[in-house]
Amino acid sequence: MRKREETVVGFIGLGLMGGALAMGLRKMGFKKILGYDIKATVIKKAIADEVIDDGAWESVGLVRMLKECDLVFICLTPMDALGFLALYMEDFKPGALITDITGVKEVIFRNLGKLLRTDIDYVPGHPMAGSEKEGYGGATDSIFVNRNYILTPRPENQPDNIAFLKEIITDLGFNHIVETTCQIHDEKIAFTSQLCHVIAAALVDCEDDLSITGFEGGSFGDLTRIAMINAPMWTELFMCNRKNLLEQIEKFEKSLDAMKSMIAEDEEKELIERLQSVREKRIEMGNIREAKLKRPEAE
Amino acid sequence: MRKREETVVGFIGLGLMGGALAMGLRKMGFKKILGYDIKATVIKKAIADEVIDDGAWESVGLVRMLKECDLVFICLTPMDALGFLALYMEDFKPGALITDITGVKEVIFRNLGKLLRTDIDYVPGHPMAGSEKEGYGGATDSIFVNRNYILTPRPENQPDNIAFLKEIITDLGFNHIVETTCQIHDEKIAFTSQLCHVIAAALVDCEDDLSITGFEGGSFGDLTRIAMINAPMWTELFMCNRKNLLEQIEKFEKSLDAMKSMIAEDEEKELIERLQSVREKRIEMGNIREAKLKRPEAE
Repeated sequence: MRKREETVVGFIGLGLMGGALAMGLRKMGFKKILGYDIKATVIKKAIADEVIDDGAWESVGLVRMLKECDLVFICLTPMDALGFLALYMEDFKPGALITDITGVKEVIFRNLGKLLRTDIDYVPGHPMAGSEKEGYGGATDSIFVNRNYILTPRPENQPDNIAFLKEIITDLGFNHIVETTCQIHDEKIAFTSQLCHVIAAALVDCEDDLSITGFEGGSFGDLTRIAMINAPMWTELFMCNRKNLLEQIEKFEKSLDAMKSMIAEDEEKELIERLQSVREKRIEMGNIREAKLKRPEAE
Repeated sequence: MRKREETVVGFIGLGLMGGALAMGLRKMGFKKILGYDIKATVIKKAIADEVIDDGAWESVGLVRMLKECDLVFICLTPMDALGFLALYMEDFKPGALITDITGVKEVIFRNLGKLLRTDIDYVPGHPMAGSEKEGYGGATDSIFVNRNYILTPRPENQPDNIAFLKEIITDLGFNHIVETTCQIHDEKIAFTSQLCHVIAAALVDCEDDLSITGFEGGSFGDLTRIAMINAPMWTELFMCNRKNLLEQIEKFEKSLDAMKSMIAEDEEKELIERLQSVREKRIEMGNIREAKLKRPEAE
């Protein structure tokens, strides 16, 4: 297995997630941490913060940096990640381990096709963490504590490299790593993440009274915190996963409609039963993840 | 104004909210704290916990207790509160200050009509706090910290009594008190509280994969925590506020539908603009409440 003290790490994009990951890896004894961002101010700040040792903000510096990196985290949106891979595929160091953090997977790996070099090992990933803040200025590695991390390994991936990444992920604070396919990732994420963001946004969108927060008891705040959304990024995620997301929205609308009609028709008994089963299901959903944490070997 | 050390307080219902309020008032130097609950075990436990000094679980004891109470918190569901008031109106101590915590208001005060005695002062209230736990066993007064409390005073209320209640509410940890009408309360609450609970319930209801929490990044957890719902209580709240709630569900469905159609039709530019305005609106909603806390005299 690779040794951290001999590994040079490169971050492509030092935004909220790239910045937070770099901050976390900084503490792990890697040989060197490098960063690329289109904003020179971000790279200079990250060097001043000692989050990265050196960095680049234009393509000459980026190419030089890539040739040095044993491990690369691509921390861009899906379309930017795809564009980056198409442009710089030839510049990765032979034998490098590459990973990413994009919130949709199929769109990248369907389009990347034969572009992927066989002498690099690309393990797609998705840290299930975030924040209502934006950019490097909002980055902190505390967002990773007790979260899920999804890996969608490819058949070609070397087990040693997957194991190496998993150790890093665990040291970042994640307490649950799921391995699945790109297809299942995109289906599940359409529900747990994208649908939730659409609902939160619609809930804020439909209310005109800005003083409404004076009447809330925590529910509205909890449901709409994620409505403080990075609009271009989430639009891209929604569009890249359109089919799955539309299915999930329609699935949710059906349940909402069923409850609405029970309320409208005064079907008290039916509604109590439905809500009781919802309560039990939600408790069970929590218990299942807890149980996995206690028996990680059972997965 | 009333003096706490001369005031006997009675709690009708020592569930999650009644229990939590009693725990909070216990620390405030009242002369005596009494409790009534239909469960003898709860009363015995609350006495053992020294949350109440004495209590009752049947009507003879309740009537005796009521005659002693200068301040009564009715901590029952709306229909139970209405039934309690109809049954025990003649038993309140003359001059007593009565308040409640019910999540809907019009249904009570429309039906209570002329039953209300003129020698008691009834100030309806609604602490905007809660928990996914249930009953006295789940009660803790920490749920009140930095929350909203809504009062819907009646024209007959004595200003001194309202001021007395507000001091207690502030000492409980609430940092924002709103005074409004029963009608506005019910309209606003249909959005901030009831709609949010329906959405959370529908979101859990529509998903069959109990392991889905392995794929979530906090959003699903935040949006569905309140789906661990007290089914009979929330069904009653929904039914008691049916007209307002159905309007709010439909309002939300319209916004959700607009976003769904933008995603389906690939209207990227429109969706980015809509999400950007949602982000700004949500930030402003937070700022407005913050600003109120800083200038309470301006309300």
